Amino acid sequence: MRVGVLTGGGDCPGLNAVIRSVVRKGVQEYGYDFIGLRDGWLGAIEDKVVPLGIPAVRGILPRGGTILGSSRTNPLKQKDGEGRVRDTLTAHGIDALIVIGGEDTLGVAAELSRRGIQVVGVPKTIDNDVSGTDYTFGFDTAVNIATEAIDRLHTTAESHMRALVVEVMGRHAGWIALHAGIAGGANAILIPERPFDIEQVCGWVESRFKINYAPIVVVAEGAVPKEGHMVLKDRTVDEFGHVRLSGIGEWVAQEITDRTGEEARTTVLGHVQRGGTPSPYDRWLATRFGLHAVDAVRDGAFGMMVAVRGTDIVRIPLADATVGGKTVDPSLYDEFEVFFG
Amino acid sequence: MRVGVLTGGGDCPGLNAVIRSVVRKGVQEYGYDFIGLRDGWLGAIEDKVVPLGIPAVRGILPRGGTILGSSRTNPLKQKDGEGRVRDTLTAHGIDALIVIGGEDTLGVAAELSRRGIQVVGVPKTIDNDVSGTDYTFGFDTAVNIATEAIDRLHTTAESHMRALVVEVMGRHAGWIALHAGIAGGANAILIPERPFDIEQVCGWVESRFKINYAPIVVVAEGAVPKEGHMVLKDRTVDEFGHVRLSGIGEWVAQEITDRTGEEARTTVLGHVQRGGTPSPYDRWLATRFGLHAVDAVRDGAFGMMVAVRGTDIVRIPLADATVGGKTVDPSLYDEFEVFFG
Amino acid sequence: MRVGVLTGGGDCPGLNAVIRSVVRKGVQEYGYDFIGLRDGWLGAIEDKVVPLGIPAVRGILPRGGTILGSSRTNPLKQKDGEGRVRDTLTAHGIDALIVIGGEDTLGVAAELSRRGIQVVGVPKTIDNDVSGTDYTFGFDTAVNIATEAIDRLHTTAESHMRALVVEVMGRHAGWIALHAGIAGGANAILIPERPFDIEQVCGWVESRFKINYAPIVVVAEGAVPKEGHMVLKDRTVDEFGHVRLSGIGEWVAQEITDRTGEEARTTVLGHVQRGGTPSPYDRWLATRFGLHAVDAVRDGAFGMMVAVRGTDIVRIPLADATVGGKTVDPSLYDEFEVFFG
Amino acid sequence: MRVGVLTGGGDCPGLNAVIRSVVRKGVQEYGYDFIGLRDGWLGAIEDKVVPLGIPAVRGILPRGGTILGSSRTNPLKQKDGEGRVRDTLTAHGIDALIVIGGEDTLGVAAELSRRGIQVVGVPKTIDNDVSGTDYTFGFDTAVNIATEAIDRLHTTAESHMRALVVEVMGRHAGWIALHAGIAGGANAILIPERPFDIEQVCGWVESRFKINYAPIVVVAEGAVPKEGHMVLKDRTVDEFGHVRLSGIGEWVAQEITDRTGEEARTTVLGHVQRGGTPSPYDRWLATRFGLHAVDAVRDGAFGMMVAVRGTDIVRIPLADATVGGKTVDPSLYDEFEVFFG
Repeated sequence: MRVGVLTGGGDCPGLNAVIRSVVRKGVQEYGYDFIGLRDGWLGAIEDKVVPLGIPAVRGILPRGGTILGSSRTNPLKQKDGEGRVRDTLTAHGIDALIVIGGEDTLGVAAELSRRGIQVVGVPKTIDNDVSGTDYTFGFDTAVNIATEAIDRLHTTAESHMRALVVEVMGRHAGWIALHAGIAGGANAILIPERPFDIEQVCGWVESRFKINYAPIVVVAEGAVPKEGHMVLKDRTVDEFGHVRLSGIGEWVAQEITDRTGEEARTTVLGHVQRGGTPSPYDRWLATRFGLHAVDAVRDGAFGMMVAVRGTDIVRIPLADATVGGKTVDPSLYDEFEVFFG
Repeated sequence: MRVGVLTGGGDCPGLNAVIRSVVRKGVQEYGYDFIGLRDGWLGAIEDKVVPLGIPAVRGILPRGGTILGSSRTNPLKQKDGEGRVRDTLTAHGIDALIVIGGEDTLGVAAELSRRGIQVVGVPKTIDNDVSGTDYTFGFDTAVNIATEAIDRLHTTAESHMRALVVEVMGRHAGWIALHAGIAGGANAILIPERPFDIEQVCGWVESRFKINYAPIVVVAEGAVPKEGHMVLKDRTVDEFGHVRLSGIGEWVAQEITDRTGEEARTTVLGHVQRGGTPSPYDRWLATRFGLHAVDAVRDGAFGMMVAVRGTDIVRIPLADATVGGKTVDPSLYDEFEVFFG
Repeated sequence: MRVGVLTGGGDCPGLNAVIRSVVRKGVQEYGYDFIGLRDGWLGAIEDKVVPLGIPAVRGILPRGGTILGSSRTNPLKQKDGEGRVRDTLTAHGIDALIVIGGEDTLGVAAELSRRGIQVVGVPKTIDNDVSGTDYTFGFDTAVNIATEAIDRLHTTAESHMRALVVEVMGRHAGWIALHAGIAGGANAILIPERPFDIEQVCGWVESRFKINYAPIVVVAEGAVPKEGHMVLKDRTVDEFGHVRLSGIGEWVAQEITDRTGEEARTTVLGHVQRGGTPSPYDRWLATRFGLHAVDAVRDGAFGMMVAVRGTDIVRIPLADATVGGKTVDPSLYDEFEVFFG
Repeated sequence: MRVGVLTGGGDCPGLNAVIRSVVRKGVQEYGYDFIGLRDGWLGAIEDKVVPLGIPAVRGILPRGGTILGSSRTNPLKQKDGEGRVRDTLTAHGIDALIVIGGEDTLGVAAELSRRGIQVVGVPKTIDNDVSGTDYTFGFDTAVNIATEAIDRLHTTAESHMRALVVEVMGRHAGWIALHAGIAGGANAILIPERPFDIEQVCGWVESRFKINYAPIVVVAEGAVPKEGHMVLKDRTVDEFGHVRLSGIGEWVAQEITDRTGEEARTTVLGHVQRGGTPSPYDRWLATRFGLHAVDAVRDGAFGMMVAVRGTDIVRIPLADATVGGKTVDPSLYDEFEVFFG
């Protein structure tokens, strides 16, 4: 059996841990060969491959990023993309593919699976917004980085009695904002799932100042004010899927400044949330995903994706995982309103 | 409604986060009063209490330890312990107790509940060995600290081509050893649930040296060799529940040295695994446990304990949680054998 | 002897460590009383004071920010500022002042000293740009935070073969950019002291891509291109002394994108560089500064400032320290050019 | 010009940063060739060499340990050691050696230099005890790790009102204990340079408990009690130069327990203090040491060692650096006594 491996979409701490455990178990236990496809689906359509043996995966467990490179290329939007993918697989005798990616990358995997290519998926996103799995690797690391930043900002806010706004990742889902905001003791958390009332946010800010504490407002990059409140500036999305500068965080800070008379400042955490060594939990989860993905290949469980439910790794249909994202449930968000203001 | 809160057993990152969220929600949403009992059950039998309002819990979210103090006192082993507990509750008009602790502390809570005292439990242990909950807070922090130590030891091991043994916490359960060992890329992981064959461990060490890599062996403090292999030195258990120095880690290193001719060294991580600021995940989990514990009080769900299942916080009978510990399942351990040696 | 203490300017990790060691030594060894003036010079002119005994300084060593609060108020620019400062000192029987601050705050201290007020200075700035001292506390912490961010960005840059620009603090001096850039393995470091040639920067970026590595460009917020290269966007300076968003980092990224055809991205680290727990070195230096400042008071060494030279703490005239800032020497910058490109 | 490079003695964060900057500057600026000698002086006498070009040093800046391996081999204690070293140098056309090591390794370098071999030294020791230089790289990293551990232990000590003893590295010099102890807010710091009075230590512990704080005692592994107080258990020194378990820390804890009636516990930090990624300061210092070492080779400044004085890198005779170690000056230690007890 020869198995191809590719990583697609934005990089994410834990990708290398998946690759390592796939290869370690596949080679040592099942005697498989592995081929890496470079730069996501791009390697599949342009026939860019690398051999992927045990020496290639030594020492990569704690390293962020992906040794295979990544891209946002969608082969189904390329001329004869499917044919070129098949050509590459045939040329290298690849029997099955392990595809590690987010919604877009796995969406392609699901479609190619329907068309007969043998694919197993591994969900990956720092945003934690893949359906069917409790968590995705990369998310815990991102929350750790964002929380550490919030911890640091508290002392500055208190020393100057100043409101600070922190913009974190999360274009469609507020998981990072919610987890890091709660862990960091934020006084307001604004997420895409819940359009916010800027008046209410300013009220929280003011009530905090009244008891002589300085407020921290955590804003997901995809948070939006309720209708009528905001004139959006130009916002563009980069190839990692993040909203670029001059985003919602700055808008919120400006509104707080204008409405409360207290100058607020913004910090945009940006790409630091997605890089660097994975947290131990993400290494654990990514390692288990890799082990179970190669088991799925052995079992012929194609068209499936690994997922975590509680402490178990399970298989779910790729199709289920890629239909709409997993967003923050209103009741979960409401659990925490006691901490706002 | 007046609610007493106590923390018992070894300290654990996240205790303060529970106390804070209990008080914030109880006061702000339900108008409860809170009384802290000092030093676990000791405060309950000796009438040592402190008022516990919102000012007392400000700023404690990121702080390790417990502002209420802790102890291992078991009131049921004291003369008229139950009566003295009841006297304290009566004296202060305490209607219900929120008890945050591990197996022993919750065992007392379960028994007092059977005897009619209104108790809600919150499970706490860095060892992660409480039944009925996927995780306990404190565990993630301990795994982070142990993994960081293993990461550091790798470079020393490689530079000197030396086997290093790391002894981590876990007297009855190998959760910390297993998670940190996998996350840290250990070459052998020895846990209490699986008596080890020292010959096999030495074989793993030697096979690692043969490919010019230096082995790291992670040993839970409660790991034991198979019958006949070990003459145990004197080992005592301290009040945190840890085995004191001269433990199994040193024995394993000595055996490796004697049997393979390669000198091995031991590092005993000790108490650093249980202190300091909680990880963001532990703050999140502890905060949610606190919110749901006070909801349980409101609902009159006495005799119950909060727990996490997947991403949900649920209630389970205290009695269920304290019957035997949650240990590492053999099939989970076997998942990782591909990384050994 | 009664001594006043104030902290002025932007907050900085280590301020609390100075306050603590001043008070601990002053009270325990010399029997002094201490009064804290709130919010820098503002407290001195508005008579906002707090008692400052040993209980007030317990536990503050590892905490960022300042328990005394801070501001940028300059009493010499206020109507009868000097008189109001004298009134406050007289009202509370304050014999001498220990002033902890950066260039502006110490400049006021120097002037008030010339006018007869008994002042001892302690230099403070994350930017490390105070003359007469090898280092200032807060700088090491800022470099640690910036370096950790650069470490994280490397994996993202490599995975996507993308140039990343990191904008760090440093309006007039490039110390943070230089230290963090060298420690983080940057491929170009742009500092205010050395106007840069954007063509050369683009050349470095391209040469890096040619050997299949992704470039990281570290830019101090005060870096400027050589004449003719740049049309500066609107830039404002906030009250912490930092340039606000839409700064030089984004300009550099845009130019790289336009000139090389390789899309570059910017991360602006912002306020996270100045907050949170001080590094051990900063705690050490701040503690020693505090001990020596109170010794200077005892010795009647007014008009002086403590400073570090090698491993010694020395006293230098306040006037010397506040005449122009300490900038990166060209020969030091040139030491590192071998790493560029 | 062909230059050999070797790293000797215990591993130390920053070794790889030196190797990288030596090679980068030597190759790019001076056109030198480099040969790595494996495992310290062992490679020099056994002719174990590796080519050392720019590809070999890519990405090693943030990695702990040494890519060249290390050992404690002393060629001058080997039969015809000098001759064998010369043979290796001749066989590979090596004109000069850059030797990175501590007292022992540099002592050999000094002697070989006297005998006519062209050597430049780079001092290395986490213990910071090399004469002639303000600091050595690796020290800052070790202090960071030890301080973080002390920070963590505080919360456990406070929660249980228990004295905790931390044993840190430092066989002959108390630099790590002193810096980490001061940065960590220890209540007693015991160093080799100042034999301690166990009665006084117990007095400090008791006075701390009296004000309801839990004491932390930091002990260098080489600390010794004043005559008559201690019956030393068997203590052996490992090949990293550390005292093995059952050392002074445990003795101090036992004495505190026996004399005060308060049970004390010990944590022995061990090898974690010397491994892992170097701190930014250590990367900076190591990088500069490397740049200046290769300049020394170019200048023919053989028999010299690089050193840091203030913020300058200077050259000093190897002979000066290796005559006795740099220990903690009594007056520096006394600066901090206000914090004890």
